Amino acid sequence: MAVYTEVSDEDLRQFMAEYDLGEALSCKGIAEGIENSNYALTTTTGTYILTLYEKRVNPDDLPFFLGLMEHLAAAGVPCPTPIHGRDGEALRRLCGRPVAVVTFLAGMWPRRVASEHCADLGFALANLHLAGIDFVMTRANDLSLASWRPLLARSAACADEVKDGLAAELSAELAQLEADWPADLPSGVIHADLFPDNVLFHHGRLSGLIDFYFACTDAFAYDIAICINAWCFEADRSFNITKARRMLRAYREVRDFSEKELVALPLLARGSALRFLLTRLYDWLCTPDEALVTRKNPLEFYDKLRFHTSVAGPGDYGLD
Amino acid sequence: MAVYTEVSDEDLRQFMAEYDLGEALSCKGIAEGIENSNYALTTTTGTYILTLYEKRVNPDDLPFFLGLMEHLAAAGVPCPTPIHGRDGEALRRLCGRPVAVVTFLAGMWPRRVASEHCADLGFALANLHLAGIDFVMTRANDLSLASWRPLLARSAACADEVKDGLAAELSAELAQLEADWPADLPSGVIHADLFPDNVLFHHGRLSGLIDFYFACTDAFAYDIAICINAWCFEADRSFNITKARRMLRAYREVRDFSEKELVALPLLARGSALRFLLTRLYDWLCTPDEALVTRKNPLEFYDKLRFHTSVAGPGDYGLD
Repeated sequence: MAVYTEVSDEDLRQFMAEYDLGEALSCKGIAEGIENSNYALTTTTGTYILTLYEKRVNPDDLPFFLGLMEHLAAAGVPCPTPIHGRDGEALRRLCGRPVAVVTFLAGMWPRRVASEHCADLGFALANLHLAGIDFVMTRANDLSLASWRPLLARSAACADEVKDGLAAELSAELAQLEADWPADLPSGVIHADLFPDNVLFHHGRLSGLIDFYFACTDAFAYDIAICINAWCFEADRSFNITKARRMLRAYREVRDFSEKELVALPLLARGSALRFLLTRLYDWLCTPDEALVTRKNPLEFYDKLRFHTSVAGPGDYGLD
Repeated sequence: MAVYTEVSDEDLRQFMAEYDLGEALSCKGIAEGIENSNYALTTTTGTYILTLYEKRVNPDDLPFFLGLMEHLAAAGVPCPTPIHGRDGEALRRLCGRPVAVVTFLAGMWPRRVASEHCADLGFALANLHLAGIDFVMTRANDLSLASWRPLLARSAACADEVKDGLAAELSAELAQLEADWPADLPSGVIHADLFPDNVLFHHGRLSGLIDFYFACTDAFAYDIAICINAWCFEADRSFNITKARRMLRAYREVRDFSEKELVALPLLARGSALRFLLTRLYDWLCTPDEALVTRKNPLEFYDKLRFHTSVAGPGDYGLD
């Protein structure tokens, strides 16, 4: 949760004059998202989300993120749609920061994931991948394989404080991934951070995919691997094969895997577990205490990584 | 800002069935209030505020707070109105905590206070005092004079770390206040925490008084003294006599001061500055780093206290 920038009533009044959204009735900082400052903006025409982009987001990436949300929403993916100002621009400035207003989606993210959620997620993920195929912009995944070695180096000195021998163990794991990482998998737009808190459900059905600020161009199967890590483990970190099976089956009904993707899945799952382990390790060690962020325990992904290194093949994820 | 308790989608669904508010569309933790967990609850019938009362609020006080808001709202004071469940109860339980749903008020609190805000505030404060006269419940002010000595004792050991010699200086100030504190001033319901972030403005006019969780039965003039401290100093801690004059004049148009209240004002202002200095000092020293609360600098009120000890009489607050 985070609200880093305070928007004054005066700033907001001037800002709203740039839109055709009616008049602001209220603007409340909301405790969602760890990268940006988010506000529930209520106007005479409805409720919107106002996002101020803070320093962890590269301003050069914003046209990609906003263009992508607009493209996906137009293709029927339930995601926030950027609202354009009177001059046609969706990306503006407020309080010295880049800012956008997007549509508000009904629903809440599931605090307790059930296998039904995983099935809905599989459908939505495949639809997102297909809908992104004709999106013309691209963005490299700056948290993919090439970034992990420098990320590990930045946390290595402290990693052993989190768990004895962790730095060496992760370095060995990373060496294997670097040697075996699959190339030439089917690629396109991926969400790259589709955890339960980024997926809204309403009446028990998926009603929204949000937070596209890690979206990039990468292998579709890597996005699936992220979702396996994000959705198919229980609170005690045990793997739930039923959830994975339902997610993967639903995905394949919309977009089938190639044989190559199938074979790569265990390795991609290891890579994705390592990616979140490394960023959480870095955040855990480096987040200043005064930041209004709930740090997440990195060792959750250590246990997931160990599961993936133990699987015999893609069948262990519930695939036939 | 604070959201301490997470309300799950399942809990919320069950909870909403106890009300006639339509169906929940969204429930987002909002970054307001430091005592409780607040959510913007959007349903098919509108937007509401859902408040879970955390440990700093005594559950025995909740009937007073909710009853007061309902009484004041019925008397035309622009404040949140508690929503009753189907069974007639406004105070319920959710996630193991007492909880209430109240109406949502349009407006934003003024980040930069102008003298026009102070005039509106004076009117509203006097109207609140008058509207509370026929409210039958009472609640002692547990942060009044009698509490300051024990509060100082709890922070004294660390106070000198904040400022050299502070503990002794505050102890001497408190001894004076204890000796001279006025009795028998006109009393009734006071808000007791009417800082700018608890007052909403819309179209430049006061549209809401919120956060009644320090409200109690005490001298009206003490509430005025709190507002002088809360509204009439600039960011550099200099006193703005124009703001005080406008606030006090507007108040007197609705409810006139007695001579006794007038004479007591400088001492009450000292007491109120000390009260916020002491609680901020305690919070500053004792808030755990992981709490999602922005601690406020206690020394702001040290400077205000010094101003009030220097005034020659009530005329220094802009009164004729």
